[in-house]
Amino acid sequence: MYRIGIDLGGTNIVAAVVDDDYKMVAKAKTPTAIPRTPDEIFDDIARVSKEAMAEAGITIADIKSVGIGTPGTVNSDGVIEYANNLGFDHVPAKQMLIDRLGCDNVFVENDANCAALGEAVAGCGHGAKDFVAVTLGTGVGSGIIIDGKIVSGANNAGGECGHTVIVVDGEPCTCGRKGCWEAYASATALINQTKRAMEEYPDSVMHELAKEEGKVSGRTAFDAMRRGDIAGIKVVDKYCKYVACGLINLVNIFQPEIICIGGGICNEGETLLRPIRRYVESERYSVYSKIQSKICKAELGNDAGIIGAAILGD
Amino acid sequence: MYRIGIDLGGTNIVAAVVDDDYKMVAKAKTPTAIPRTPDEIFDDIARVSKEAMAEAGITIADIKSVGIGTPGTVNSDGVIEYANNLGFDHVPAKQMLIDRLGCDNVFVENDANCAALGEAVAGCGHGAKDFVAVTLGTGVGSGIIIDGKIVSGANNAGGECGHTVIVVDGEPCTCGRKGCWEAYASATALINQTKRAMEEYPDSVMHELAKEEGKVSGRTAFDAMRRGDIAGIKVVDKYCKYVACGLINLVNIFQPEIICIGGGICNEGETLLRPIRRYVESERYSVYSKIQSKICKAELGNDAGIIGAAILGD
Repeated sequence: MYRIGIDLGGTNIVAAVVDDDYKMVAKAKTPTAIPRTPDEIFDDIARVSKEAMAEAGITIADIKSVGIGTPGTVNSDGVIEYANNLGFDHVPAKQMLIDRLGCDNVFVENDANCAALGEAVAGCGHGAKDFVAVTLGTGVGSGIIIDGKIVSGANNAGGECGHTVIVVDGEPCTCGRKGCWEAYASATALINQTKRAMEEYPDSVMHELAKEEGKVSGRTAFDAMRRGDIAGIKVVDKYCKYVACGLINLVNIFQPEIICIGGGICNEGETLLRPIRRYVESERYSVYSKIQSKICKAELGNDAGIIGAAILGD
Repeated sequence: MYRIGIDLGGTNIVAAVVDDDYKMVAKAKTPTAIPRTPDEIFDDIARVSKEAMAEAGITIADIKSVGIGTPGTVNSDGVIEYANNLGFDHVPAKQMLIDRLGCDNVFVENDANCAALGEAVAGCGHGAKDFVAVTLGTGVGSGIIIDGKIVSGANNAGGECGHTVIVVDGEPCTCGRKGCWEAYASATALINQTKRAMEEYPDSVMHELAKEEGKVSGRTAFDAMRRGDIAGIKVVDKYCKYVACGLINLVNIFQPEIICIGGGICNEGETLLRPIRRYVESERYSVYSKIQSKICKAELGNDAGIIGAAILGD
């Protein structure tokens, strides 16, 4: 049998047919083209789903389940309660897709949670039952899998590990709190930390690197560190310490088999992961346990959300 | 049918017969009298269990399951891997009790997790499926229930929310980290915060109160606040802010139906809970959700662990 996984994004709608080995055998996409009505958007979701099925040479009769990953909050009836960037307010996504596809087995879930499920089952988790996915991007996103299931709490708004305070009265966060992990461990935070260090170190090579690239980016400090620049070394070390602080918190709470790290900053690979693992090993609570949480890089990239959506019904 | 719940503590062993309404119908206890061998201790556990059954007028044939709550780490085979204060190192608790009681349905779990399960099912949780219990005592203990089950991670060492950092590079914690929630929100932390404020405010009524009580306690600042003492007011406000900081972190991660707070400090009741709820409401991430986590006082006290142990097999 096959499943359909759909990624409803602010920019594109992507639908894929996924087989029993969690491989995408066909894929179709179309621009989301917001602002549009939910009906227009769901007509397009159904259309690209059918295109993907046609490309795979199958019909809806071959489909076990359909899953959609969407931004925002989804309730247990498959209604998108609120999705700011799509302009959605109480959109009955599940029913709208049942009506359009003729398949009753439809599931709707937050996109970050879908991505976590996809990585846990088909990515770096290799089927891990207890798994946490963290994305270091513009913000710090996260998804929690316990006993193979997504954890989203009583109101489906849970899993916001980026919005846990690690510095009481610290840096202001977009959520309104002060000192959230996101305000220290996101790419945005790293860029701010880099800019501050550049002010403090006028001789740092980071000034040159930023000029070459045309801006200060999440790479600036890492590139400077690779050239032995003291300011770059300091920025990277402090950033790794902040990332690790939040990860150790998650280890002490969940003791998951695996914590997976994704997002742009992860392109640094072992340069990022090695010092982070060292901090985690030195501070985690479970010193006596034989089993310890592994920290690894996300493997599926953007496909994680589509594969996760496809297997929501499994 | 009935169940047996056992609390294996550092001071006493308590066994109780629990009925289908989660009521304790009979109870027996004996001193743990450590240091003793595991065999001696488990002989006594079996003996008090039989005494409790005799008092209830039932036999082992009437028992559905037996559960033990123990300090330390328990693995999935019911072996107590390590319990410092009992001097236990790889004690096969489950098998030892099966051999002594003649009941195959035996479960072993960490005592804080048992207490969380007891409160969730039979206490202030009223059967909540997503539930977090926090104990503000010498340390900050916690137990997490998701979908009705205890969350303890891949190595059974999870649920240590007290050891999540809320102040990077902050106060030293007993676990070796700096800035853990426990180092700010435990009764021990409150006493330290009170002592510091007393140094800063030599005219505070807290000096008098401490002299009357013979020591600075977790009540000193609260009592001073009730008399309008400015230093007492400041200590209590800051302490409530620290407690709330960790609770908001837990809300943003879990969005549980209920967070239950126990431990000695909770005798302050609404004096503690009202300001904490205000902080939580103003900062939680889920502002748009109709369902919000309730924060309430633990109801079962020491019985929570026994009832939780009794229902481990449910």
